[in-house]
Amino acid sequence: MTLPLAISMGDPAGIGPEIIAKAWALRREHDLPPFFAVGDARAVTAVWNGPIRTIGDPSEVAGAFDQGLPILAVDDGGEITPGSPDVDGARCALHSLEVAAGMARSGAALGLVTGPVSKAQLYQIGFTHPGQTEFVAERCGIARENAVMMLAGPGLRVVPITTHIPLAEVAGALTVELIAAKARATARGLIKNFGILRPRIAFAGFNPHAGESGKIGREEIELITPAIELLQAEGIDATGPFAADTMFHDRARVTYDAAMCCYHDQALIPIKTLYFDDGVNITLGLPIVRTSPDHGTAFGIAGKNIAEPGAMIAAIRMAGEAAIRRAAYAAQ
Amino acid sequence: MTLPLAISMGDPAGIGPEIIAKAWALRREHDLPPFFAVGDARAVTAVWNGPIRTIGDPSEVAGAFDQGLPILAVDDGGEITPGSPDVDGARCALHSLEVAAGMARSGAALGLVTGPVSKAQLYQIGFTHPGQTEFVAERCGIARENAVMMLAGPGLRVVPITTHIPLAEVAGALTVELIAAKARATARGLIKNFGILRPRIAFAGFNPHAGESGKIGREEIELITPAIELLQAEGIDATGPFAADTMFHDRARVTYDAAMCCYHDQALIPIKTLYFDDGVNITLGLPIVRTSPDHGTAFGIAGKNIAEPGAMIAAIRMAGEAAIRRAAYAAQ
Repeated sequence: MTLPLAISMGDPAGIGPEIIAKAWALRREHDLPPFFAVGDARAVTAVWNGPIRTIGDPSEVAGAFDQGLPILAVDDGGEITPGSPDVDGARCALHSLEVAAGMARSGAALGLVTGPVSKAQLYQIGFTHPGQTEFVAERCGIARENAVMMLAGPGLRVVPITTHIPLAEVAGALTVELIAAKARATARGLIKNFGILRPRIAFAGFNPHAGESGKIGREEIELITPAIELLQAEGIDATGPFAADTMFHDRARVTYDAAMCCYHDQALIPIKTLYFDDGVNITLGLPIVRTSPDHGTAFGIAGKNIAEPGAMIAAIRMAGEAAIRRAAYAAQ
Repeated sequence: MTLPLAISMGDPAGIGPEIIAKAWALRREHDLPPFFAVGDARAVTAVWNGPIRTIGDPSEVAGAFDQGLPILAVDDGGEITPGSPDVDGARCALHSLEVAAGMARSGAALGLVTGPVSKAQLYQIGFTHPGQTEFVAERCGIARENAVMMLAGPGLRVVPITTHIPLAEVAGALTVELIAAKARATARGLIKNFGILRPRIAFAGFNPHAGESGKIGREEIELITPAIELLQAEGIDATGPFAADTMFHDRARVTYDAAMCCYHDQALIPIKTLYFDDGVNITLGLPIVRTSPDHGTAFGIAGKNIAEPGAMIAAIRMAGEAAIRRAAYAAQ
């Protein structure tokens, strides 16, 4: 048996525990690789009647995975009420993330899948990172700028070059070097994690119609085109900038392997419009595989047994496939 | 027979003539209302072998529509080469637009459908409007701010509050009054043109995650929310602002009748991602019905008989339906 994936449960009051348990129940239908959850077992038993197997070490997953959902217990002592997050839950979520990431980092787990957390709750216990991606990058010793968030669905991969900053600040945050660095990490990530030998990287313009040769803004001329030329000189198949609104329909999507987008919504609108229920967030540029379902804690539906596990299943599958490809790449 | 729609051919070297002819050929399959093209008949005969009927007046359409594509000739004398635009073609396109708009305005035609033009060519002959929408608004005596561009597909309608301005200037261009004015015209337009008695208007936020209560930008707090409150006080069903990336998937789209978007790509990315081949541009706030296919001249494929008429067919159908609803509304 290959090494198992480590899945941090995320906030115990969110839908993380439920969708992990449902993914385990559907492991054969979806041919999922072995995995174990890291978190408070009571968060699962509160929302799911299936079998669980408490383990003390990832090596026990091989023997346990067919009998029940393997859980490596992290117990922070608080009561768990699905749909009602609190600071004890946030501590448990952070502890789970720390343990699961550490196991992926040490090689005890094949890779890391992270369940959804509540940033609002995490901030209350002193969490200072913008999100789990930056936390994991730091634990891996990788500078934030070199960790790239890619959102991937069955027919589209997008990378937002900037993420959670005000839209009015994006133009000032974009630099030729930032754009090029994100694209380099994206190209490397597509080779290593997706087995794409010569990735095609397409850039979205910043302005309407990609600026119409400078008539509607100059970010394309001053920032994006110079970055593309730099990347091309390095041998990367970079093209654009293209009018963003014509990049994401069926026929356009097959012309590239990843779309580099200037800001959050330019990347997130197309991926969530098309793949709201099965989008995966994968972090490129780390020494480990890390994926997560591209949705939040959904406290409003937690504990009602109606959460859809599609995105978690897709995240587990993508992590497993990426780990295999990375091993093959490393062995070359 | 009801009055016919007037269709300006657009640039004679673009795909306008071909898709109008193809729409005529498919008139029975799609149950299209009667229409006539305004432009140079040679632009059609250069790309299509079907029958045409030259008319001198819209009243002749009733007798001609079953025999051939009725064309009200506007001949500006230049040679026409599909795929090779020139200033003679731009003059012809502008003349066609002027004549067709005038007939819709005078009541000789039921409404106006406009074929795609080349703004670059039009600018060379002294055209000073940002696009056909503003030109038609002016000819109708309507202030630019009160003419609203809506993009509509089978399952989504979007309105960009700002359009062809640099993205970095959008925050400065948004005002409570502009947002409210566009939404009022949208609500009225949905009632009159689409027969929706109580339109549900949903607002997209400007920043990622709609600003997260001010943590990622304040445009939602300072501009969008006050506009929504103003509209609600006027009895309009206005909601939001919502995170733009979660507004356009299947289940979200059924919760509103139109999405008000802050900038061009926020509106155009979802509509073109979903409905690239059959999106319709409809101008609300005019005394006439005006629609157009939501695509450009496509000079690169003109004359090759491969242009898809889907968006033109959708634009003709929407114009016909809107005209009937407006007449019913006016008769109330």
